[in-house]
Amino acid sequence: MALRRTLGLAARPYSRGAAKDWLTEDFLDALRAVVGSTNVSTATAVREQHGRDESVHRCCPPDAVVWPQNVEQASLLATACYSRGVPIIPFGTGTGLEGGVSAVQGGVCFDLTQMDRISELSTEDFTVAVEPGVTRKALNRFLRDSGLWFPVDPGADASLCGMAATGASGTNAVRYGTMRHNVLNLQVVLPDGRVLHTAGQNRRARKSAAGYQLTSLFVGSEGTLGLITQATLRLHGIPEATVAAICAFPSVQAAVDSTVQVLQAGIPIARIEFLDDIMMIACNRYSGLSYPELPTLFLEFHGSEQSVEEQVQATGEIAQLNGGSEFLWAREQEARNQLWNARHNAWYAALALHPGQKGYSTDVCVPISRLPAILVETKQDLLASRLTGPIVGHVGDGNFHCLLIFDPEDPDESGRVKEFTVRLARRALAMDGTCTGEHGVGLGKRQLLREEVGEVALSTMRQIKATLDPKNLMNPGKVF
Amino acid sequence: MALRRTLGLAARPYSRGAAKDWLTEDFLDALRAVVGSTNVSTATAVREQHGRDESVHRCCPPDAVVWPQNVEQASLLATACYSRGVPIIPFGTGTGLEGGVSAVQGGVCFDLTQMDRISELSTEDFTVAVEPGVTRKALNRFLRDSGLWFPVDPGADASLCGMAATGASGTNAVRYGTMRHNVLNLQVVLPDGRVLHTAGQNRRARKSAAGYQLTSLFVGSEGTLGLITQATLRLHGIPEATVAAICAFPSVQAAVDSTVQVLQAGIPIARIEFLDDIMMIACNRYSGLSYPELPTLFLEFHGSEQSVEEQVQATGEIAQLNGGSEFLWAREQEARNQLWNARHNAWYAALALHPGQKGYSTDVCVPISRLPAILVETKQDLLASRLTGPIVGHVGDGNFHCLLIFDPEDPDESGRVKEFTVRLARRALAMDGTCTGEHGVGLGKRQLLREEVGEVALSTMRQIKATLDPKNLMNPGKVF
Repeated sequence: MALRRTLGLAARPYSRGAAKDWLTEDFLDALRAVVGSTNVSTATAVREQHGRDESVHRCCPPDAVVWPQNVEQASLLATACYSRGVPIIPFGTGTGLEGGVSAVQGGVCFDLTQMDRISELSTEDFTVAVEPGVTRKALNRFLRDSGLWFPVDPGADASLCGMAATGASGTNAVRYGTMRHNVLNLQVVLPDGRVLHTAGQNRRARKSAAGYQLTSLFVGSEGTLGLITQATLRLHGIPEATVAAICAFPSVQAAVDSTVQVLQAGIPIARIEFLDDIMMIACNRYSGLSYPELPTLFLEFHGSEQSVEEQVQATGEIAQLNGGSEFLWAREQEARNQLWNARHNAWYAALALHPGQKGYSTDVCVPISRLPAILVETKQDLLASRLTGPIVGHVGDGNFHCLLIFDPEDPDESGRVKEFTVRLARRALAMDGTCTGEHGVGLGKRQLLREEVGEVALSTMRQIKATLDPKNLMNPGKVF
Repeated sequence: MALRRTLGLAARPYSRGAAKDWLTEDFLDALRAVVGSTNVSTATAVREQHGRDESVHRCCPPDAVVWPQNVEQASLLATACYSRGVPIIPFGTGTGLEGGVSAVQGGVCFDLTQMDRISELSTEDFTVAVEPGVTRKALNRFLRDSGLWFPVDPGADASLCGMAATGASGTNAVRYGTMRHNVLNLQVVLPDGRVLHTAGQNRRARKSAAGYQLTSLFVGSEGTLGLITQATLRLHGIPEATVAAICAFPSVQAAVDSTVQVLQAGIPIARIEFLDDIMMIACNRYSGLSYPELPTLFLEFHGSEQSVEEQVQATGEIAQLNGGSEFLWAREQEARNQLWNARHNAWYAALALHPGQKGYSTDVCVPISRLPAILVETKQDLLASRLTGPIVGHVGDGNFHCLLIFDPEDPDESGRVKEFTVRLARRALAMDGTCTGEHGVGLGKRQLLREEVGEVALSTMRQIKATLDPKNLMNPGKVF
């Protein structure tokens, strides 16, 4: 009988619950046998690096980290964990915002970044396959000379498979859709090590009516049903012309009315981002700009030269009718980069409002018609709660974030942040919306999910989880 | 103890399997107690009407037909069936093409056409809710003065909830997506009578990352997981301008090359339909037209006046480069209707090639680059098989149908049709495609589904089915 010595790791200050009988040299040797000893680590620093994402959720390090090099290794590692009842936590770039990588029940973190192959590019079919180590920027660099690009852009340079796992979207979703619309097939390692192709191996037709849509089930499942080891994506043609612009409005209502009218007019706008007055102040300060400190829309138009000019003109007329300012243009690449840098730096600009403090990016989404009401109420709530929370939003989708800046060491302020975010989510729910448009449920929104979907839907989701992951080993403690 | 008398219905020539102990007056009384006696029928003619769709699958009538008037009644009826182990078959307009409504194990057909309310229209949010009795044409009539429309168009004037159940698409999908992209929420009666809101009650945000995407799971589930009793749909703005055109090509390759280049150029074409030479001959004969009898694209452009002109010009240039004819225009509504009637009458035109015979519309979908190869091989196969099968396709999606015209009383020809369709599906599978782009699996493609998705995906789908419908009562015998 093999020696089963439970390891006393030097530092496991975050571990909770029962002693981990499975954490033996035997088990680690089984992992090393699959990936080699350099690709298994129990070092504290490594574990801590893998125990948190970019959110304020506290670090829960896994007990070990492994780096599979290919799907066969990922499958064998999963089998090793499954047979011993060890939790499995998938890890891409760690850029999530709801604590999705936190090892709340310990277990083995699968760092998938060394699986970084791009394959099966078809410029005629607009398809490509990527492994989890490929980020959206890496893919777009790879595609540079192909005339194609992948438009889903959540801001962070996230793993594309991770973006599939969380159902990410971002600034371009109003025109190009979210990950749900741009994933054609997934290769998934199930908890027991079997390899699933959600649409069948090598399938990459633009549509299919063959059986249940497993691809859609795994997109947004937040690692709770399996490890995504490859995603087949739908690509888009790089537009002939791109023009960006900024337009300031006298009120939130005027900015949102303009957005609704742009959509009603069928203008195929590529980006329509809202920044409130506080966010504009923060951006001006942070980036040394002098934009009007008013509710503002950041816009981008894609198409042929002629179509872009027409879109710009029609959008300009709508903005004028709603009291918007003259457009501030960014036609050349450099000017566009400057403009979008201001938008993409919103997070850092917000943090710079109170140096040394932390940020929490909330995430709700409502039907567009409810945006003015929810934004006005939310700004009142921020004032009443004595909280700093500039607002940015993918307003064409009804989705917005409040970037709360606070001192996590101050229990009173932290408490107010927590209460505020729950109130904000419930406000969205009361307006037929969702508690998360794109960040996912993770650790923070499990109770809100229940309130949002109701008992029958929640129990249906739980039934699916229990069926596909009967031992509750895949990223346990998340979503439910 | 209540009298349990098994009914000897006058004509049940199609019933198979064990005697139906549940088919008692007691049971029928329980149904009548819910919907009233006029909304329960066991008449042979009614049952036969409900035992088949528009396909060539043989009629399998249900044992009874019920007409619920609202979701509460549908739920109570399902509960009555569930407690007695009685199969439930949902029925909308009966316009399916893979035998989805066939009561292969008997049971109760739920004819949902009397639930026909349209509610919750929001012209600002582009959303509306419809019950199963609402067809796509009825919805578009309702929307006429709103400036909005619902673009998914499978040809038939189908129930929108039925279209959700089969994951329908059609001619406009290349621009507006399929049902998957245009359903925001579903109300579903589960087999045990519980009412599920797939995205939560009243939810209608454009996107959500809250929990598993149950909406996508039920779209395309072909009635095997529950009864769809309401669908919340995403609407689109009616374009300012619409222009249609026809262009003939010297070869299949030239027509498909043009299609790929149009998509690569990012032209937001609304419809791009392929008809082969045989189909054009049939259309000319049927509709008294004189179009060139060559591989032909039927095109439609949506947008502003200016954008449509630009799209037309760019598409025209691409067609010319590929040897296409001058465009034959249809700019006014009447001319467009005439043009699209020719396309929409393709089915009847094909049937008219051999009066008195029946038609079977096959359905496969491949990556667009494989279209020339599969079309050429398929046309050779038709010749070698001595079959008449004009081809029409939603070529922008890589999806096409072969409209096989044959004599079902001729066992030799019927056998050749069956073998041909299996070969065609396998040809699509060998080219990374799917055995069904939009018609679904139903009765006819269960073996092909297995070949397409593989054992792991199939067993995952079966696990989901067994979990959500543990007694296998929802439309049993379909998909699996």
